[in-house]
Amino acid sequence: MARSLLCPDAFLSPLEIDAAVTRALAEDLGRAGDITATATIPEETPARAIVVARAAGVISGLPLVAATFAKLAPEIDIAANMRDGASVAAKTELMTVSGPARAMLAGERTALNLLGRLSGVATATHEFVRRVTGTRARICCTRKTTPGLRALEKYAVRCGGGFNHRFGRDDAMLIKDNHIWLASGIARAVACVRAFGSTLPVEVECETLDEVDKALEARADILLLDNMSIDDMRRAVEINRGRAKLEASGGVTLEGAVAAAKAGVDRISVGALTHSAPALDLSLEVTKTWR
Amino acid sequence: MARSLLCPDAFLSPLEIDAAVTRALAEDLGRAGDITATATIPEETPARAIVVARAAGVISGLPLVAATFAKLAPEIDIAANMRDGASVAAKTELMTVSGPARAMLAGERTALNLLGRLSGVATATHEFVRRVTGTRARICCTRKTTPGLRALEKYAVRCGGGFNHRFGRDDAMLIKDNHIWLASGIARAVACVRAFGSTLPVEVECETLDEVDKALEARADILLLDNMSIDDMRRAVEINRGRAKLEASGGVTLEGAVAAAKAGVDRISVGALTHSAPALDLSLEVTKTWR
Amino acid sequence: MARSLLCPDAFLSPLEIDAAVTRALAEDLGRAGDITATATIPEETPARAIVVARAAGVISGLPLVAATFAKLAPEIDIAANMRDGASVAAKTELMTVSGPARAMLAGERTALNLLGRLSGVATATHEFVRRVTGTRARICCTRKTTPGLRALEKYAVRCGGGFNHRFGRDDAMLIKDNHIWLASGIARAVACVRAFGSTLPVEVECETLDEVDKALEARADILLLDNMSIDDMRRAVEINRGRAKLEASGGVTLEGAVAAAKAGVDRISVGALTHSAPALDLSLEVTKTWR
Amino acid sequence: MARSLLCPDAFLSPLEIDAAVTRALAEDLGRAGDITATATIPEETPARAIVVARAAGVISGLPLVAATFAKLAPEIDIAANMRDGASVAAKTELMTVSGPARAMLAGERTALNLLGRLSGVATATHEFVRRVTGTRARICCTRKTTPGLRALEKYAVRCGGGFNHRFGRDDAMLIKDNHIWLASGIARAVACVRAFGSTLPVEVECETLDEVDKALEARADILLLDNMSIDDMRRAVEINRGRAKLEASGGVTLEGAVAAAKAGVDRISVGALTHSAPALDLSLEVTKTWR
Amino acid sequence: MARSLLCPDAFLSPLEIDAAVTRALAEDLGRAGDITATATIPEETPARAIVVARAAGVISGLPLVAATFAKLAPEIDIAANMRDGASVAAKTELMTVSGPARAMLAGERTALNLLGRLSGVATATHEFVRRVTGTRARICCTRKTTPGLRALEKYAVRCGGGFNHRFGRDDAMLIKDNHIWLASGIARAVACVRAFGSTLPVEVECETLDEVDKALEARADILLLDNMSIDDMRRAVEINRGRAKLEASGGVTLEGAVAAAKAGVDRISVGALTHSAPALDLSLEVTKTWR
Amino acid sequence: MARSLLCPDAFLSPLEIDAAVTRALAEDLGRAGDITATATIPEETPARAIVVARAAGVISGLPLVAATFAKLAPEIDIAANMRDGASVAAKTELMTVSGPARAMLAGERTALNLLGRLSGVATATHEFVRRVTGTRARICCTRKTTPGLRALEKYAVRCGGGFNHRFGRDDAMLIKDNHIWLASGIARAVACVRAFGSTLPVEVECETLDEVDKALEARADILLLDNMSIDDMRRAVEINRGRAKLEASGGVTLEGAVAAAKAGVDRISVGALTHSAPALDLSLEVTKTWR
Repeated sequence: MARSLLCPDAFLSPLEIDAAVTRALAEDLGRAGDITATATIPEETPARAIVVARAAGVISGLPLVAATFAKLAPEIDIAANMRDGASVAAKTELMTVSGPARAMLAGERTALNLLGRLSGVATATHEFVRRVTGTRARICCTRKTTPGLRALEKYAVRCGGGFNHRFGRDDAMLIKDNHIWLASGIARAVACVRAFGSTLPVEVECETLDEVDKALEARADILLLDNMSIDDMRRAVEINRGRAKLEASGGVTLEGAVAAAKAGVDRISVGALTHSAPALDLSLEVTKTWR
Repeated sequence: MARSLLCPDAFLSPLEIDAAVTRALAEDLGRAGDITATATIPEETPARAIVVARAAGVISGLPLVAATFAKLAPEIDIAANMRDGASVAAKTELMTVSGPARAMLAGERTALNLLGRLSGVATATHEFVRRVTGTRARICCTRKTTPGLRALEKYAVRCGGGFNHRFGRDDAMLIKDNHIWLASGIARAVACVRAFGSTLPVEVECETLDEVDKALEARADILLLDNMSIDDMRRAVEINRGRAKLEASGGVTLEGAVAAAKAGVDRISVGALTHSAPALDLSLEVTKTWR
Repeated sequence: MARSLLCPDAFLSPLEIDAAVTRALAEDLGRAGDITATATIPEETPARAIVVARAAGVISGLPLVAATFAKLAPEIDIAANMRDGASVAAKTELMTVSGPARAMLAGERTALNLLGRLSGVATATHEFVRRVTGTRARICCTRKTTPGLRALEKYAVRCGGGFNHRFGRDDAMLIKDNHIWLASGIARAVACVRAFGSTLPVEVECETLDEVDKALEARADILLLDNMSIDDMRRAVEINRGRAKLEASGGVTLEGAVAAAKAGVDRISVGALTHSAPALDLSLEVTKTWR
Repeated sequence: MARSLLCPDAFLSPLEIDAAVTRALAEDLGRAGDITATATIPEETPARAIVVARAAGVISGLPLVAATFAKLAPEIDIAANMRDGASVAAKTELMTVSGPARAMLAGERTALNLLGRLSGVATATHEFVRRVTGTRARICCTRKTTPGLRALEKYAVRCGGGFNHRFGRDDAMLIKDNHIWLASGIARAVACVRAFGSTLPVEVECETLDEVDKALEARADILLLDNMSIDDMRRAVEINRGRAKLEASGGVTLEGAVAAAKAGVDRISVGALTHSAPALDLSLEVTKTWR
Repeated sequence: MARSLLCPDAFLSPLEIDAAVTRALAEDLGRAGDITATATIPEETPARAIVVARAAGVISGLPLVAATFAKLAPEIDIAANMRDGASVAAKTELMTVSGPARAMLAGERTALNLLGRLSGVATATHEFVRRVTGTRARICCTRKTTPGLRALEKYAVRCGGGFNHRFGRDDAMLIKDNHIWLASGIARAVACVRAFGSTLPVEVECETLDEVDKALEARADILLLDNMSIDDMRRAVEINRGRAKLEASGGVTLEGAVAAAKAGVDRISVGALTHSAPALDLSLEVTKTWR
Repeated sequence: MARSLLCPDAFLSPLEIDAAVTRALAEDLGRAGDITATATIPEETPARAIVVARAAGVISGLPLVAATFAKLAPEIDIAANMRDGASVAAKTELMTVSGPARAMLAGERTALNLLGRLSGVATATHEFVRRVTGTRARICCTRKTTPGLRALEKYAVRCGGGFNHRFGRDDAMLIKDNHIWLASGIARAVACVRAFGSTLPVEVECETLDEVDKALEARADILLLDNMSIDDMRRAVEINRGRAKLEASGGVTLEGAVAAAKAGVDRISVGALTHSAPALDLSLEVTKTWR
């Protein structure tokens, strides 16, 4: 059952899993499928294989692996040694897959690409989370996600211990520089947003301490401190006196995250978690014939 | 016309462009769309914005940017300063977008995510290509692509000057270790493939020089030298005497690529071009009101 | 098995069920799913819930409820106390759903919206049907259905004891005022339709008794008496002398339906069955922990 | 241009418009299309038609009408007398459509069904809004929407002057009775939600004043007063002393809304706006031949 | 405008055209598109090509050709010498296509496959129609269509002068042997169908004259004379005395159709029109450079 | 299990099976489904039916039959007497289907259309293959496939013992007359293709022996002898001296194939296998009540 492989603290829609797996399989199988396997391996050949993490990391995507193989051959059997969210050492065996050899090879690359991508995001997230442990700061992802994989990558961030910022333009009121400029100022932009009638918290992007003042005056719920120096962040924390939540943002590195966390912000959003995390190195090792 | 923005040496199906843009926009707009812009910016407000590359790199994805804005508001005007495949310095202005401010902000993140991802792949590819210039070696991508984006990333590799290895399991006969093992040896596996009747060249994965001998004996067209030392690669080139094409593969770094190229292989396939290339840093700068 | 929950006198395609449920679930789960349940309820928590009709009515849509929960968690167990088409009193327990609490809450609103909408249509239909019992008149729905739900609503009408008029523009020859006018008269329009070669019965819209004469003369199979007074309807029945079928149409209320039925028409088509029926009031009551 | 027909205060994704129109047209055209029009009207016949509101109401859905005709024949010309959100008297002419007669009749029912459904929702909303004018209360819709039409109906609510409550299970933290019960109490449920790391406001459903106390103690941001008597609502307003926002909910009628508004709540959510609003009565009147 | 290329006597939904063209193009372009053209032809090369019918026949599918090229490059120009339904001699030039050479070659096979298939159906239909001219018999297609192309092939039958029998299981009441047998006899089956409340004509399959008697007694509207000898058909015509419509069916050849027509049946349904018609032979001839 | 019904020498993606069956069922069921069966057959009626090949042929498509019935009613039981690729005599019973009578009749035509079409292709292929037995020639299909069914028809060709030429424009380098002409000659076109960096073999279309010389000089891997006389083919075989593979193409009949095979070509590609093969004649015979 793919379901029980999900990280217990996060949701991933079965509709998203099905859509992502179908799309990825379609582009790998093409129209003729795995012609090398069809040509070389007798149809009835059984096989057993183990999915192995070559490098250490946090696992995310096991339900997608299960769904990939299930779509190719319902009789394939899956036995996982863990569920999403587990931290593993290099060379850890993640799951065993048993079934028709052709179907297993046909699904290999799709399964590994999905698992490698999401585990890469989870692993990068976990590294940031680990480094700010002991502070009040939470590590968040942004909307700088891989096109087509947003729900999956947001899920992977949670597997890594991070938190999700908004999923799209529609589930948060985030007033950025362009909104401010086009709406003629912070005060007016916040007023527009309040009048819009949404109950979502209002977040305002601030590049200077002057803007921090204005946003606090406008009673913003959250301040996005954009590309601010650590000194200015510290100053913003003082000015704020706990009124709004403070979020650090803008090209944040591991070191930058630690400094921002120590400066006292509540939230650190890191685009690199999703736009630039390398995939986790994985392999599918066919170990022995089954049956 | 989105079409004229394509790299002249590569094909990207309009069906792929439309599908990728639709999917990416849908996940960013959600059900309620850009609520912050709706709340703060009057509907008739016009704007002009410039897409800027913050870092140096090779551009790939301009037709997707155009398609994104066209889907949101057909009246948006696009003026590009280049087409895909161009190498640019940091801070280069790539294109100007003019139209309704709301629609432009609604498309901003989707457009930048697509362009950033593909330009990241093109830029990484170009760096490998540049380093092996003067050798016979060609830089190729693998099937370790982002799930759902294969056709786009393969296109980006060509924008960066690289070459495309197979697109899926269906357009190449690539006999890997598992096929060899399950088919009882290289000779038998190659015989099976020839009997299959395909006219595709037959490629055989070799981990040792002994396997190189066997694959040449079986008259393979291409040899995939998997995770071989540079010394062994050099030896394989000698043994081969020009009979088969030789391809180096397996965790190839920039330095590894240079060494393999000097060793004399014909092709170097690099998974990292697609599975771990960081996105190119871009921004959309709203510069002045239009009209 | 969702299948055995269907009304025995009607067909509903499994493709329609799957499409409607997928679409409805997708819009309710969004990208992040049921975040409140994920946050508050431990993943392994089991639950049992009962779907209750708060008001009296005719039930339609139980297979959609089953399909909704099956899509979220295949292990959810469904036990229905009836099938579609059943008339129930207020406070009747319709079905019991047992399984993981999170999945059950995730599907609650989607399941109730589907069941409430279709049962609303079935209930409204049944009320009309009940009132014309004893006459020759049959109650039919029109094409004034909710966009995207036509096949489902037509099915609900049958659950309520009504009959289906045409499903679309393609399965009936219905010559309306505009066709008559653009084709230069009833006689000519009917001639065109006969020449078209379809074996479908030819129905002609008549607003006056003069048009009734012309349509009968043109040997129409069915006459649509559009917005006619009860007196005129009675007169049309006399003129017709059993030659064509007569259908009353146009803003028909319960009282109007009774009067038309008594006037002797064969069929009464009621747009309000689908375009304006209120949803049946339902709830999902979590009753006790299972296991 | 369909775009300029949108209500200026609301967003409706072009992707949603296209999907809804395609689906609705497909179910009305079927496989053979408008066979009556094909049989009776010569292909080159031009026509001009006017969309008329037979009853008074608030208009919503004009861009969908335009998109419907554009899909059938790009040469159809649309001239609208207003945009979405306009209040109109009975017998108002909304827009003129000119083009090939066959295509216009083929799109008639689809266009009217979409416009009638959304205008019905907007009209119902407007009536509630009008009645609570002068109080602090805002009228909101719920998730009791027509399956498959949520984004459209939420848009229609805004056209009618209402506000949107959450769009799905994923964009609000709304702790209902089942969450409370399964999570062992209000305090614990709120704590879980805070720990989840979302910045969304936390809303708690309260059926009694005792629960109001507990929810305030747990520092909920919003209290959903579920099926509470007007007296209890008034009492809740007093207890609250402006700390949380208060929302009245549960089978709210026009009279109930007025009473709740006077009792001092901030928000009144009304399921009937979407689940039971009758469609606005509309017609397409072919007025004269064009050209 | 693709629209004006349609046969004036038939409808083909723009939704069907778009879906068929998208699907067909996708399977021909694959992921990498027309790699030979990309490799050999400079991107800016213009071309002009003529679609030629190598054999004589009836043309059907020109709007699909136009839609194919429009999807690949909106700037491609189409000039047709006729519209669907035209009878042409061998070597007739059907249309001229001008635009970028790469896009034209990319669409060539898809366009020709669509046009060849539909014109093959239209041509086969026309041959049957021609042979029964002067009799009362109409040539009809069946549901033995190519999976996925039903609406298109039904349209092609009309282009060839034939008529459409039912489009699916849902738009005709056709009681076949299995229904009769499972419902315990013709009389009972017809009674069930009448009770179902549909206004569709009732057709009954008859294999013997005894069944013809029973079906007439049951007042069937149409009799399907299945695999009956010409003598029996003639006898059935006499027995019928104009009461029901008579349809000949079952492995009908050209000669069989002529004989059945002379025997006096009203309708002859021919599965081979769609399930076994050879494609019309076509070519795309690149004639000279444009511009 | 549909899976074990596949031809052992060929791959057919489960994604393709699902898509083809869904599309074909949708067009046959329409919106109202099998109304005749709903009206005449009680819902609980069981049935057993046998799929029979009326004519001799090679079977292809059994997994699609199984998938069709599985989609309509999961409880339908399938027992096949063979798998795809089997040669059968006329009147052979292929498989037994047991389950609810309504669902079986609802799926009948879709299942037979799919099986008939693919078996028709397999049968036509087998006839060509049989006739060239004993020569070196392999029978191949082309891209002249039925729009939307390419992957299925290519699979059917393999079931019949044939081989697959390219699946699309993207998996072979085939330089045809237009490429040669637009690229200014064979030598230049081949050079362009080699520079493109693909490892696919390069095939060149030759209409004359002069072109054969040029293509061999350019070191093409395969020569497509287009519409060449048997004498010229024989001459081309001599000139070639085993250097390139030779493929005969162009309106090939059974007799032409035998002659080409004897002339010594390696491959004969036959468009008629897919564009003009008649469907295999099949029936579903309901034999007795089950249970």
